Amino acid sequence: MGRLLDTIETPMDLKGLSLEEMETLAREIREQIIATIAKSGGHFAPNLGTVELAIILHALFDSPQDKIIWDVGHQAYPHKLLTGRRDQFHTIRQWQGLSGYLRRSESRHDIFGAGHGGTSISAALGLACGRDLRGGPEHIVALIGDGSLTAGMALEALNHAGHLKTNLIVILNDNEHSISPNVGAMGSYLTRLRTDAYYLRAKEDFESLMHRMPLGGAVLEVVEKFKGGLKQWMVPGMLFEELGYTYLGPIDGHSLPALRENLEQAKKLKGPVLVHAITTKGKGYPYAESDAVRYHALSPFDPASGKVIQSSSGGPPAYTNVFVDTLAQLAETDKRIIAITAAMLEGTGLVKFQERFPDRCFDVGMAEQHAVTFAAGLAVAGFRPVAAIYSTFMQRAFDQVLHDVCIQNLPVVLAMDRGGLVGDDGATHHGCFDFSYLRLIPNITLMAPRDENELRRMTLTAINHTVGPIAFRYPRGASVGVPMDEEIIPVEIGKGEVVREGRDIALFAVGSMVYPSLKAAEALAGRGIDAAVIDARFVKPLDEELIARFAREARCLVTVEENGLPGGFGSAVKESLDRQGLWGVPCRAIGLPDRFIEHGTRPQLLEAVGLSPEGIVSQVEAFWRSLTALTFLPHPGERHSV
Amino acid sequence: MGRLLDTIETPMDLKGLSLEEMETLAREIREQIIATIAKSGGHFAPNLGTVELAIILHALFDSPQDKIIWDVGHQAYPHKLLTGRRDQFHTIRQWQGLSGYLRRSESRHDIFGAGHGGTSISAALGLACGRDLRGGPEHIVALIGDGSLTAGMALEALNHAGHLKTNLIVILNDNEHSISPNVGAMGSYLTRLRTDAYYLRAKEDFESLMHRMPLGGAVLEVVEKFKGGLKQWMVPGMLFEELGYTYLGPIDGHSLPALRENLEQAKKLKGPVLVHAITTKGKGYPYAESDAVRYHALSPFDPASGKVIQSSSGGPPAYTNVFVDTLAQLAETDKRIIAITAAMLEGTGLVKFQERFPDRCFDVGMAEQHAVTFAAGLAVAGFRPVAAIYSTFMQRAFDQVLHDVCIQNLPVVLAMDRGGLVGDDGATHHGCFDFSYLRLIPNITLMAPRDENELRRMTLTAINHTVGPIAFRYPRGASVGVPMDEEIIPVEIGKGEVVREGRDIALFAVGSMVYPSLKAAEALAGRGIDAAVIDARFVKPLDEELIARFAREARCLVTVEENGLPGGFGSAVKESLDRQGLWGVPCRAIGLPDRFIEHGTRPQLLEAVGLSPEGIVSQVEAFWRSLTALTFLPHPGERHSV
Repeated sequence: MGRLLDTIETPMDLKGLSLEEMETLAREIREQIIATIAKSGGHFAPNLGTVELAIILHALFDSPQDKIIWDVGHQAYPHKLLTGRRDQFHTIRQWQGLSGYLRRSESRHDIFGAGHGGTSISAALGLACGRDLRGGPEHIVALIGDGSLTAGMALEALNHAGHLKTNLIVILNDNEHSISPNVGAMGSYLTRLRTDAYYLRAKEDFESLMHRMPLGGAVLEVVEKFKGGLKQWMVPGMLFEELGYTYLGPIDGHSLPALRENLEQAKKLKGPVLVHAITTKGKGYPYAESDAVRYHALSPFDPASGKVIQSSSGGPPAYTNVFVDTLAQLAETDKRIIAITAAMLEGTGLVKFQERFPDRCFDVGMAEQHAVTFAAGLAVAGFRPVAAIYSTFMQRAFDQVLHDVCIQNLPVVLAMDRGGLVGDDGATHHGCFDFSYLRLIPNITLMAPRDENELRRMTLTAINHTVGPIAFRYPRGASVGVPMDEEIIPVEIGKGEVVREGRDIALFAVGSMVYPSLKAAEALAGRGIDAAVIDARFVKPLDEELIARFAREARCLVTVEENGLPGGFGSAVKESLDRQGLWGVPCRAIGLPDRFIEHGTRPQLLEAVGLSPEGIVSQVEAFWRSLTALTFLPHPGERHSV
Repeated sequence: MGRLLDTIETPMDLKGLSLEEMETLAREIREQIIATIAKSGGHFAPNLGTVELAIILHALFDSPQDKIIWDVGHQAYPHKLLTGRRDQFHTIRQWQGLSGYLRRSESRHDIFGAGHGGTSISAALGLACGRDLRGGPEHIVALIGDGSLTAGMALEALNHAGHLKTNLIVILNDNEHSISPNVGAMGSYLTRLRTDAYYLRAKEDFESLMHRMPLGGAVLEVVEKFKGGLKQWMVPGMLFEELGYTYLGPIDGHSLPALRENLEQAKKLKGPVLVHAITTKGKGYPYAESDAVRYHALSPFDPASGKVIQSSSGGPPAYTNVFVDTLAQLAETDKRIIAITAAMLEGTGLVKFQERFPDRCFDVGMAEQHAVTFAAGLAVAGFRPVAAIYSTFMQRAFDQVLHDVCIQNLPVVLAMDRGGLVGDDGATHHGCFDFSYLRLIPNITLMAPRDENELRRMTLTAINHTVGPIAFRYPRGASVGVPMDEEIIPVEIGKGEVVREGRDIALFAVGSMVYPSLKAAEALAGRGIDAAVIDARFVKPLDEELIARFAREARCLVTVEENGLPGGFGSAVKESLDRQGLWGVPCRAIGLPDRFIEHGTRPQLLEAVGLSPEGIVSQVEAFWRSLTALTFLPHPGERHSV
């Protein structure tokens, strides 16, 4: 017998289904997700938690007329399966396949793209206000996870929507944790709502409150008298009610009847409604249910055992591990070191740091802005705060880095994992801009290690750098596999290293591009071009002496970076040439083009943008040929004579 | 008889004062603030609202041992007067005088600098955690305005502090509005707390709630029965209590006894405490009390009448007015235009737009992140959202511009007032980085007008630009005073304009630097240097044809911008030369140095950084002399021959 899922081409096909058929569909969707992700890897547990939500939403609402706005997007696979993408589903997160998030270009049911958490209420409110101005009848539904409710922009939007009082349904998909176990007072509040539908503050708690309040003895007597009836007086979701929402819930987010009933009710209500649905990450797959953190996203696995199929055991360590091991090692002796992250305990490796130093590790929730200024406060208190935040998410804290850290020149360390292209997470998650958006800020020092040994050195360098803010970024995934120095020796601030001498071209490479540039130089040597390779190490401050030396000695310069070209490292080198009055030396920048890069494996993407060793060779060679075709190219010895 | 205020050299001098003496001191502080600001201009009403708070805080706590963290800083003048800065107070906001905000370098009592709103709780929590790790005894107090509680980062911090449960006193300085009347559900909630200390939800409201809830008829009967006692059951500040705070208040923030009593209590309590103090902006100065918005910050005024002393009537209109008048004019016929701001209704001029189009103007509170993604939602809905946000505050929305607007290539318009140096607000408020932090983002178009007529044209250009995001920035203050075109003609995307021909040097200027560059070119002509001036208009996309033309025809290029040099417009031009293979033409970038710029008048600052016409002349001349001293400088005709 065929699958019901195979009959769903558009959400319209859900309209006639009975609850029983929807249960069947839910099971089939789970089977599909398990089978696909077991094979290809990717986000897993979150998608098993939203199956019933996706079914009911598409059954009750008329997408894309009605607008269903998912948050983050890595839990929207059931939505993808129900909106005409079943046949491409096996391509998810793969080069030229479906995105692992939401994309407007992918489907008209992806009303608003997603990737970073906490955007859905803002987008939905914009759509709702647009509808009101137009006088449209459509429903607007925003989904948001409890993890995303720690994000400032989600709270800003919640606050604004509660104020505007327009019709808007916010579905709080509460699975008790975002990627890491959820933190924050809001999270505790939700837990209380969950554990007691008729939430009641503990009796002692309440009494102590009453005693602190300016109430007379007579009132306290009344309080005593009525205590028994208290439970009924307390309204669940009071916090949301206070913020202007009609609160419905908590309901079982895997119960199709409960979802249907409450969402039917939400459709009829005026003003903003918050539907609090409790879901289980990994629902329907026991291994994932019992360890949702591990099964949040994973490599290909054996569906029967739930065990990850190790494709590459014994390779070089991941940069993440090198960073956190080094930090933990330094923290043993340096008690000032404090680690901070923003809902990335696992991703940044800090979970290991937390195990060793539970008091000195803070996961502030999906709250990068707060994380950075909190770190600034710790720096003022004399500590060495290390904010470990992915490059892409540091974008959220741009103003805090600038305004709270750099203007005050506070010694905060920014450890940016996932710098450069991240691979299959795609455009929303590439760390492609950090060189540019950080180096434009005065006072900051900015580094990138070429390998894991340098990462260790830079971690120590950063900790030692007490005169101001310092940041370093390193790539996602496995490191290079170089031998590690016995002792960690810091690098000198603002000093690069010549890793290959050469007299025709000087390749100034930074971070992940040093080894590919070395390979490129070797290949170029075979073509008669003698290229030096310099590991710049620092994007800011630059090693101006090395730049000056090669501007004088080589015939031309090339910069190579895994960062967008506008305002990047290459521009920094050009600025230095200008500052130093080193005119006339051609300087070509190689890096990421000025467009958003899609998803795919890191090697696929690097090749596509010309940053594989071969790509660098061909770009450098083309540059070299164009130069030598110009007769005017002065020889270095002549160029600077007065 | 001498003033009591004159005896206060440090906060220690407050320790012995009686409440009566403190009242006297409060009066003297107000007199001082009124007299000083009447003379010099500046932030006014907010500072009259915090007099008693500052006195009690410094009387009860031992700064700088205890940490008092002010938010924003423009309400910290009483704090400045009590912490040894009385004698310099008359220099406030002036060149080389006291800052109008908080600055660590200015006083050891300025624990954490401030400028942008909403940072205090994050910083204070960092200090509190540092104290806990060190085992210190000090108290940490964060002040925050109700306006700042609409800022995402403040909400993130509130959430985190409520979760950590460390000792922290948050004083909510609730004056019912930030700069604009406050918006947001939190604001409405605070209003309810204010208007009824024993806040009680309206009876009907409660009943309807009860009926919506899954309660049986029996329970409803109980509810009916106990309704009379309800008032006492409700806890004021429940929302804050839910978030983990002990809530004290609301209290009269101008009552020294009430403040003392509650803060004494707060000192003794464990865990986070929120003290809700109601204050009046402009307190003690009737004109300001009755119109706190107008008296938020103002030019020198007559203290007796409260009337601003018009120093420059009849001059050219402010850029702000030109922008908003144009936008309103366009909005008359183009119903898709929606204006959005983030607690800057007055500052961006949108208050005028709101009067004409109340339904099409949204002030979302101090919530730039939400503002931008909300605009993105409106763009998806087919509208033409214009987010009018100061350049410095757009930094808060960097990720939203990148992730929600630009990745999706949505036609959102960013109108950035206060671009470049803002003058007396200083380092925290200069709009010095927008060229750099926006142009690094793919898909965006970025313009800057040289005068008010061009601002009108660019406003229309932006509205017409439906294929993607577009931003323009314009300076604070009066425009140039050029005649206005009858009809508004859009500019061509990516096209600059040659405003002066010349063959030696081509000055590529952008925005506010076009006229100074023209003046400079005239002066240079007198010294035998023939300079062309090009109004680049676009920072992105650049007019590559014009760049190529002058790279071939002139002997060298100079870029001039009121933006930080790293990654700025000058670097964009260098990138273009590289991209076009135009090697060998010296290109010098003139702009803001790579450091934070202090406060002062705009002319003072521009002169100090070398961006006055004279400064440009001397920089260009030095460049020119250095070039002509080099024998190798090829003549244009020779440079590109093959």
